[in-house]
Amino acid sequence: MKFEVTILGSSSATPIFNRNPTAQVLNINEKLYLIDCAEGTQQQMLRFDVKAARIDHIFISHLHGDHYLGLVGLLSSMHLNGRKKPLKLFCPEPLKEIIEVQLKYSETTLHYPIEYFFTSADKPAVILDNQDINVETIPLDHRIPTTGFLFKQKRRLRKIIKERVEELEIPTPYFSAIKKGSDYEAPNGTIYKNSYLTTDPEEPKSYAYCSDTLYTGKYFDQIQSTSLLYHEATFMHDMLDRANQTHHTTALQAGEAALKTGAEKLVIGHFSARYKTLNELLEEAKSIFPNTELAIEGKTFVISE
Amino acid sequence: MKFEVTILGSSSATPIFNRNPTAQVLNINEKLYLIDCAEGTQQQMLRFDVKAARIDHIFISHLHGDHYLGLVGLLSSMHLNGRKKPLKLFCPEPLKEIIEVQLKYSETTLHYPIEYFFTSADKPAVILDNQDINVETIPLDHRIPTTGFLFKQKRRLRKIIKERVEELEIPTPYFSAIKKGSDYEAPNGTIYKNSYLTTDPEEPKSYAYCSDTLYTGKYFDQIQSTSLLYHEATFMHDMLDRANQTHHTTALQAGEAALKTGAEKLVIGHFSARYKTLNELLEEAKSIFPNTELAIEGKTFVISE
Repeated sequence: MKFEVTILGSSSATPIFNRNPTAQVLNINEKLYLIDCAEGTQQQMLRFDVKAARIDHIFISHLHGDHYLGLVGLLSSMHLNGRKKPLKLFCPEPLKEIIEVQLKYSETTLHYPIEYFFTSADKPAVILDNQDINVETIPLDHRIPTTGFLFKQKRRLRKIIKERVEELEIPTPYFSAIKKGSDYEAPNGTIYKNSYLTTDPEEPKSYAYCSDTLYTGKYFDQIQSTSLLYHEATFMHDMLDRANQTHHTTALQAGEAALKTGAEKLVIGHFSARYKTLNELLEEAKSIFPNTELAIEGKTFVISE
Repeated sequence: MKFEVTILGSSSATPIFNRNPTAQVLNINEKLYLIDCAEGTQQQMLRFDVKAARIDHIFISHLHGDHYLGLVGLLSSMHLNGRKKPLKLFCPEPLKEIIEVQLKYSETTLHYPIEYFFTSADKPAVILDNQDINVETIPLDHRIPTTGFLFKQKRRLRKIIKERVEELEIPTPYFSAIKKGSDYEAPNGTIYKNSYLTTDPEEPKSYAYCSDTLYTGKYFDQIQSTSLLYHEATFMHDMLDRANQTHHTTALQAGEAALKTGAEKLVIGHFSARYKTLNELLEEAKSIFPNTELAIEGKTFVISE
């Protein structure tokens, strides 16, 4: 099942010439899930050919402008482009007021419903569970209430071994039960064990989005062994004091988070505007966790095929 | 005195691949005045090297998102980049609430004051008058309260004829009075008329910003003989019904507005996303008013040197 993330913005607080503030889009089984929506996200979507009409779920981590200021523009464009189907919005509760005051004064009544699901930074909670994924909030430690999001793929059905079912001429109506683990009894009474007919499905993959946060171990238990960990790395470690003061993480600490939680791979982002080039941030994180990449705008990281 | 306008965004309601929604920056005697501030304006400013720190006045025409959704991001970046000096914001009154609710939930206290000046779409009003310019609101006819802005250069002092004052050995302290129109009495009692010593200053130039509006003649008296008229031209005239319904203007009507008000030059903008190329809009406006140009992003129109 397709499970991949495309970076739409990698900058922290302010945009710089070639970096927009934070937004990412997940493609999970051909459905798009938007995570954060900074100013300019809809322009980035045009640039990277991400169709807004395919997004039915938006997740906002917190109410600092560099994570949500593009949302009202995107909602408005969806409206003007004829959207009718509901949009699910997972966010801190005050975002509803922020959106509604702007719709009120622009005298806009959206032609589609927004279904709000309010997040809490107090404790982890499952906020979405559908046939493809399960999404939990990750309470983080930032200056205002902030949650990351943990996307866990559902375990798939067992995979039928085509040659075996053909050889035994098993009728199609039995396939559903076999995929779920049943054995098969042939017309002559022979029992074929499920393990003869199927192989294990792929292990479910996971994606953890951790931005913005002070480096604390509090959320490490929840994000053990993620397939892909996105972690903010606003500063180099020589600016640790500034990172602590602003409740952010250094590139070195992001590497440590990946190492300590046993992530398969790390992507770092949310870079301070002071870094015109990013290689030193990458090298610092890699010194702790070699399998690290930079959140480069337009780049897609494949979590599963 | 320098008086020029640079286009930062030329699209209407939604951005398209190569056009951002509305924003413009005026440079008047090396001071920058921002007119409207759509989403992505600060990114456009980075692109075209417009320094936010040089902007002390922002004018917002109305509260449709394509004219103001970049403002909170810009205010926030000014704050993060250490601004201390006041910012004057000319806008419809509800914008204050929209800004304040967002600052509240991001727990941001700006390090600089915003001085609000609320506009009214009821009747024209002078909202700014300094040594360089005078700015009036232009009440327009849109779906929500909307004003354009008329920037009128102040009449400059008379220009001293260098050769004459040198020939007469007029001491420097007299120059100020001569520039204001005084005659000069030489030590021997001879009176030299001001007209012998000076030439007329340049005629004051003006810039009218008219977006968004139904094409009505109501504001024509106010914008007579502008040096440069910016007028919205959202649609081609074959979409007149849609223009009327949405309270917008066609390219043909924009040409007529320039013709009827005796503008020296017309710039059209606020193009619907349906027009991938703009030449047909330009040709339509030029069929009525030949001295027309397109609001192309990054282009600077010089009103006076």
